[in-house]
Amino acid sequence: MLYQASNPHGGGLYGRTVTLDFSVNTNPLGTPPSVVRAVEASAGRLCQYPDPCCRDLTAALAAYEGTGENQILCGCGAAELIYSYCASIGAESALVTAPTFSEYAAALTAAGVRVERYHLRAEEDFSLTEDFLPALENSGCEAIFLCTPNNPTGQLIPPALLEAVCEICRRRGLRLFVDECFLDLSDGGRAASLSGRLEEYPGLFLLKAFTKSYGMAGLRLGYCLSADGALLRAMSRRVQPWNVSLPAQLAGVAALGETAFLHSARDLIRRERPVLAEALQSLGLRVYPSQANYLLLQSPFDMHAPLLSRGILIRDCSNYEGLGPGWYRIAVKTPAENRTLISALAEITRDLSSKPLSS
Amino acid sequence: MLYQASNPHGGGLYGRTVTLDFSVNTNPLGTPPSVVRAVEASAGRLCQYPDPCCRDLTAALAAYEGTGENQILCGCGAAELIYSYCASIGAESALVTAPTFSEYAAALTAAGVRVERYHLRAEEDFSLTEDFLPALENSGCEAIFLCTPNNPTGQLIPPALLEAVCEICRRRGLRLFVDECFLDLSDGGRAASLSGRLEEYPGLFLLKAFTKSYGMAGLRLGYCLSADGALLRAMSRRVQPWNVSLPAQLAGVAALGETAFLHSARDLIRRERPVLAEALQSLGLRVYPSQANYLLLQSPFDMHAPLLSRGILIRDCSNYEGLGPGWYRIAVKTPAENRTLISALAEITRDLSSKPLSS
Repeated sequence: MLYQASNPHGGGLYGRTVTLDFSVNTNPLGTPPSVVRAVEASAGRLCQYPDPCCRDLTAALAAYEGTGENQILCGCGAAELIYSYCASIGAESALVTAPTFSEYAAALTAAGVRVERYHLRAEEDFSLTEDFLPALENSGCEAIFLCTPNNPTGQLIPPALLEAVCEICRRRGLRLFVDECFLDLSDGGRAASLSGRLEEYPGLFLLKAFTKSYGMAGLRLGYCLSADGALLRAMSRRVQPWNVSLPAQLAGVAALGETAFLHSARDLIRRERPVLAEALQSLGLRVYPSQANYLLLQSPFDMHAPLLSRGILIRDCSNYEGLGPGWYRIAVKTPAENRTLISALAEITRDLSSKPLSS
Repeated sequence: MLYQASNPHGGGLYGRTVTLDFSVNTNPLGTPPSVVRAVEASAGRLCQYPDPCCRDLTAALAAYEGTGENQILCGCGAAELIYSYCASIGAESALVTAPTFSEYAAALTAAGVRVERYHLRAEEDFSLTEDFLPALENSGCEAIFLCTPNNPTGQLIPPALLEAVCEICRRRGLRLFVDECFLDLSDGGRAASLSGRLEEYPGLFLLKAFTKSYGMAGLRLGYCLSADGALLRAMSRRVQPWNVSLPAQLAGVAALGETAFLHSARDLIRRERPVLAEALQSLGLRVYPSQANYLLLQSPFDMHAPLLSRGILIRDCSNYEGLGPGWYRIAVKTPAENRTLISALAEITRDLSSKPLSS
């Protein structure tokens, strides 16, 4: 028995024969060459401990985000920051939407914080609507967790609604955690970020990752932004001093220069997403509208096993709170990769229609 | 202001001009070529999330240590495991020696565990002696922290004494944390490890790192061994699922094949340590006996600043509980590097003797 997260995630390709991984929502263009080179170059400096203060990376991030260095904390992937945030806020309960990324609830539970759910509705395409505002006004929770675009639904929170949420949280003194990890690869990109509003909303905490934007899932690098210096200090005290590896720090600095790479990826996703969605719909799948680099699907048949037997991995979303069997998430990848998925699915549905459906 | 560990550690070379780093106790031979190649090769696979279960690495470790896979948990450096251990044991108080590695107390404090100190005595060369046993019998702490060889003192705990400690802890139901991170580079190497005694002592927890043995400080990879599966599960739940990066996992597997490299390093250290110690003593420094790859020194003059002005960094130990100003730790490095240090120190002491000592 090996110790592992109780929640299976995307990228669960270890121990399986996978040639094409649609379960992980990283940049369809892969890792920029400058990042690959930075990691190769780091291999000659492994004896050195990484800088516990991430000085060069923090300076590069402050310039990139237009924030103060004291509003930035780096972590070993965004996931580590979720855990240190949940362990540091001293909340009794937190309001988390469903479905959403499962690590918020896992980290809250690990920190002894009670999780309350706000269920998004399939009939509203799982979008966050104005109905959330009275729920927020009446909530007894001290912390609110949102994700834009939401994972696995792909829905951006409308700017006016997000603004209203920020206002209520400020007035009520609630902490507001907003996960922007997929924003770079979504329609409009980081223009929708709240990073310029940190001082206005001192209870606001923004989660950011290099993982998705720059194809750096293997390296583990994320950061967060907040004007609450006491919170960032408390979070940094909960983790070891050398949490961000040397290869990750060097790769992060390199990645921040890759604006054109991000732009190309976003263009590709915007072109390919409707093509992929239409092809999936024509195969009888329900595809939810998305502004992100992934699509949430509902299927009348099991997609996971027959795709896996063809070497294609997709994200089975049956273990998401608020979803169940028959829900899947797939990444938008390159045109050729997307066509391979569609061909495999067409084959699977042909096989199904030639056989009687078992009850 | 940047967020950082409150405790400055070795390797604090960032923002300084350092050409020779004696503050970090890693392998004097550097990083084995197979590890460098593994990291270079990982640069082409960064899009992949790392395996949350560290399957290949855990299998390699189980074979190397001769333990079950279910007795192993990997972490983002040994430091991460210290934090997740302290947060998972549910202790009210812990007994920690002084001086010792400062992260035990930092992690215990972060987890809300009260730290009690057992002071090692300079007049006994900071060795752990039989006097510890009655203290252990009478201690009200639920967890005991030991380090062998101890950092920064370089003293191995005598096997018979360690055995007696294990026995008392078993009888009294105390958790025993033993940090063996420097054992590979110490006289006798891993022959002194308690790794074969896990089932005999279910409260025993062994901390192990790749950092020192294989010059991998920048990568962040450590592991721990324990027969207490419930503890390892609780620790794994406190951290994110992808805490060990892909480069670190691949490098770890490569490193475990480097037995000859470790052997050469240990030989070098054993030859060089007395040469270095004698040269330091002849310069008027008090050098404590060590069986490890570093030496603890007491100096009548400030060594840190004048060495740093010559591009040489050593570990100022003044912030160690139980030490104070005038205490320093230096790594045993290659003959040429050690000679450079001695020449610089000879120059500094000559300068001092030509000037009247200020009061």
